[in-house]
Amino acid sequence: MKFNLIKTDNYSKARIGVLETDHSKIETPIFMPVASKGYVKSVPTHELYKMCEITIGNTYHLYFQPGIEVLHKAGGIHSFLNWKGSILTDSGGFQIFSLKKLNKNTEDGVLFKSMIDGSFHFFSPEKSMKIQRFIGGDIIMAFDDCPSFPCSYTVAKKSLKKTHFWLKKCYSYLQENPEIYNYKQSFFPILQGSIYPDLRRFSAEEISLLEAEGYAIGGLSLGEEKEETYNITDLLTDILPKKKPRYLMGVGYPADLLEGISLGIDMFDCVLPTRNGRHGMLFTWKGIMNIKNKKWEKDYSCLDEFGKTDVDQLYSKSYLRHLFLSKDSLAKEIASIHNLSFYFHLLQEAKIHIMHNKFFYWKKSIIPLLQKRL
Amino acid sequence: MKFNLIKTDNYSKARIGVLETDHSKIETPIFMPVASKGYVKSVPTHELYKMCEITIGNTYHLYFQPGIEVLHKAGGIHSFLNWKGSILTDSGGFQIFSLKKLNKNTEDGVLFKSMIDGSFHFFSPEKSMKIQRFIGGDIIMAFDDCPSFPCSYTVAKKSLKKTHFWLKKCYSYLQENPEIYNYKQSFFPILQGSIYPDLRRFSAEEISLLEAEGYAIGGLSLGEEKEETYNITDLLTDILPKKKPRYLMGVGYPADLLEGISLGIDMFDCVLPTRNGRHGMLFTWKGIMNIKNKKWEKDYSCLDEFGKTDVDQLYSKSYLRHLFLSKDSLAKEIASIHNLSFYFHLLQEAKIHIMHNKFFYWKKSIIPLLQKRL
Repeated sequence: MKFNLIKTDNYSKARIGVLETDHSKIETPIFMPVASKGYVKSVPTHELYKMCEITIGNTYHLYFQPGIEVLHKAGGIHSFLNWKGSILTDSGGFQIFSLKKLNKNTEDGVLFKSMIDGSFHFFSPEKSMKIQRFIGGDIIMAFDDCPSFPCSYTVAKKSLKKTHFWLKKCYSYLQENPEIYNYKQSFFPILQGSIYPDLRRFSAEEISLLEAEGYAIGGLSLGEEKEETYNITDLLTDILPKKKPRYLMGVGYPADLLEGISLGIDMFDCVLPTRNGRHGMLFTWKGIMNIKNKKWEKDYSCLDEFGKTDVDQLYSKSYLRHLFLSKDSLAKEIASIHNLSFYFHLLQEAKIHIMHNKFFYWKKSIIPLLQKRL
Repeated sequence: MKFNLIKTDNYSKARIGVLETDHSKIETPIFMPVASKGYVKSVPTHELYKMCEITIGNTYHLYFQPGIEVLHKAGGIHSFLNWKGSILTDSGGFQIFSLKKLNKNTEDGVLFKSMIDGSFHFFSPEKSMKIQRFIGGDIIMAFDDCPSFPCSYTVAKKSLKKTHFWLKKCYSYLQENPEIYNYKQSFFPILQGSIYPDLRRFSAEEISLLEAEGYAIGGLSLGEEKEETYNITDLLTDILPKKKPRYLMGVGYPADLLEGISLGIDMFDCVLPTRNGRHGMLFTWKGIMNIKNKKWEKDYSCLDEFGKTDVDQLYSKSYLRHLFLSKDSLAKEIASIHNLSFYFHLLQEAKIHIMHNKFFYWKKSIIPLLQKRL
C-alpha cells in the first residue's frame, strides 16, 4: 500500500492524500460504507460500484456467513463479491466485545457464543489474523481489546496493556504467515485508552514506533461527549506519523466527519448513513429530513436538488414517504443510497476546500446547516 | 389507445401487436409487473425503467396508500411515480372479493373493512371508476364480481349477471365523467363465468358487442386445472374481436405465458416472478433454481449466463445464496430483477419466433426446459 500526502490545509490539520492498494487508488479523506457480511445493508453492490472505492467488511460476520471456506474457494472476498475496489476488514474484536455478557476474556483471546446458532467459538489475535488472511481484505486490522464506555482508569489501563500485548501477537502471526492471494495486505494497529489522555498518549507513542502502514483510532464515539472525542483525536494526530493514513473508527455524523478531517483524520467508517437512512433520516446540504413526517406528504419536489445520484433526481419526497409508510424495502434502499452519496459529496467538497485553504471557514459555516432539522 | 396487429402465427393463435397509449408504445405480447401501490415490491423504479413500458397499479391499494388526494395533487400517478411509460390500474374488485369474509356484497357494490386500519368502506362500480379517474392510469378496468374457485354453477351464473350489470354502470359513469388529466384513459371490461363454458361463452359474446378498446379475462388461474384455464382461454379468444388486445389477468408461470400467447393472448400480469423471486426461486432458460439450496453454496458462476440484466452478470449464485441466507432485502431485489428480466426476455424470444412462424414448435421444445428443477 502506498500513501501520498498531496496537500495540508494552512489553517487546520486537514489533509488530502492518495491511498493506493493493489486493487484501487483512493483519495483521502474517505468514508468507507460498512459491508460487514460483504454487502451494505439495503444497498445493492451495483449501486455501490458507482459511488465508492473502498468498503469495510467484518471478520466476525464473514467468519459465520458465508464462512471462510466459501470465501477461500472463491479466491478471496474481492472475487466473492465481484468487487473491483479495495476492501478493509475489521478484526472482529469490537463485535465480540460488544456482546460482553456471553464472553470469557483471557490473556490469550476471547471465548464467545455465536449470535447465529449459539455455538461457542474462540478468537485470539492469531485466529483473527488467520481469518483475515483467508478473507483477503487489502487492509486488515489488529485484534484489540475494546473497553466499553464509561470505564474506570484501572480497567482502561489493563485493557490497553492487553491490546498492546495482542498487537505483538498479530505482528508475529502475519510475519510468519504471508498473504495467500496474489496481492498485498496492509496491517493497521488500533490505538485504545478510553478517554484518558495519558493512556491515549502512551498508546499512540508506543504504536507509532512500529512503523505501521496506517493507524486506527478505536474506542471512541461510544457515548462520550463530542468534545472529548475531538480532544483525544487532536492529541493523537499530533503524535501519529504525519506520512501515514489515520483512520477514526465508527465515526459518524456529517459534522463529526468534518471535525475529524480538521484534526487530521484520513479515513472514516460508520453505519450511521445507512442505519439512519433505513429509519427515514436523510442528510442534505440544507439539514436533516425525517422523510416519514406528514410535512412531506404532498411535497412533490425531487428528493434532493443538490443530490448526485439518480435516486435524488428521480424520486420525490412525497413518493419516498409513501414507500416508507408502505414499509417496502425500497424505501430503505433509496434513503441509504441518498445518504451514502451525500457523505461522498460532503467529502468531495471538503477536499476542494482543503485544496484552496478554505476548509476551516467553510466547515464553520456549513456545520450549523448540516445539523438543522427540516 | 391504438392497437395494431402486426403479425399472426401460421400454426397457432399467437400474435404480435403494438399497443399505443398517450404515454408509450408497447409491443405485445407483454408482461406487466405488478406495482399495486405504485411500486413493484423489492424492485426499484429506476431498475424497472430499464426493463419495461407498462406496469399495473391497484385501485384498492392506491385508494388507501398514498390516497387519492396525494395522487390527484401530484397530477396523477405518472407524475407521482415519475413514470414515463404506461400504467394500467385494476379496479380493486378482485382484492375486495379475496377478503370475502369481511364483505357485504349487494346489488350496488361491496361494503368491506380496510386491511390497513379496519375502517369500513363502500366500493361500487361508480366509485371504482371515480377513483381510477383520479389515479389516472392509461388503461382502467371494470369493477367486476369475481367468484372464488371452486364455485357452483348457480353462484357463477348469478355472479356473472352482477358483473354484466355493473359493467353497464361503469360505462355510464365514464361517459358522464371524462378524464381529469390531459391524456386518454382506455376502459377494458372483464369477462367472468368461472369454469363453465356456456357462461364464459355468454360473457364473451355479450361483452364483445360493446366494442371496447380491449378485453380482459378474469377469474382464471384461481386453482382450476391448467387444462381448464387453457380450454376456456381458447374458447374466449375465438369469440373476442380479433383487432382488440386480450388481457389474461393474473397469469402466470413462464410456460403459462407461452400457452396463453399460443391461444391469442396479448397481455399478462402476475405477482409470480417477483413473489417467487423473493422466496429464492429463479426462472432461467435451463430451468428453475432454488438459490437457497446448498447446491449453489460454492457455485461462483454468474447468476444467469444468458441473463440480460446487470445483476445476472455481476452476481454469482454463491453470493446471491449468501444474501438470501443473511436475510437481506438485496437478495429479494436481485432475484426479482432477474425474474422480471427473464420474463421480458422470454416474451422477446416468443415474438421473434412468432415473426418467423416458428412459435408453435419452439414453445413445445422450450416448455420442458422451463419447468425443469435445477
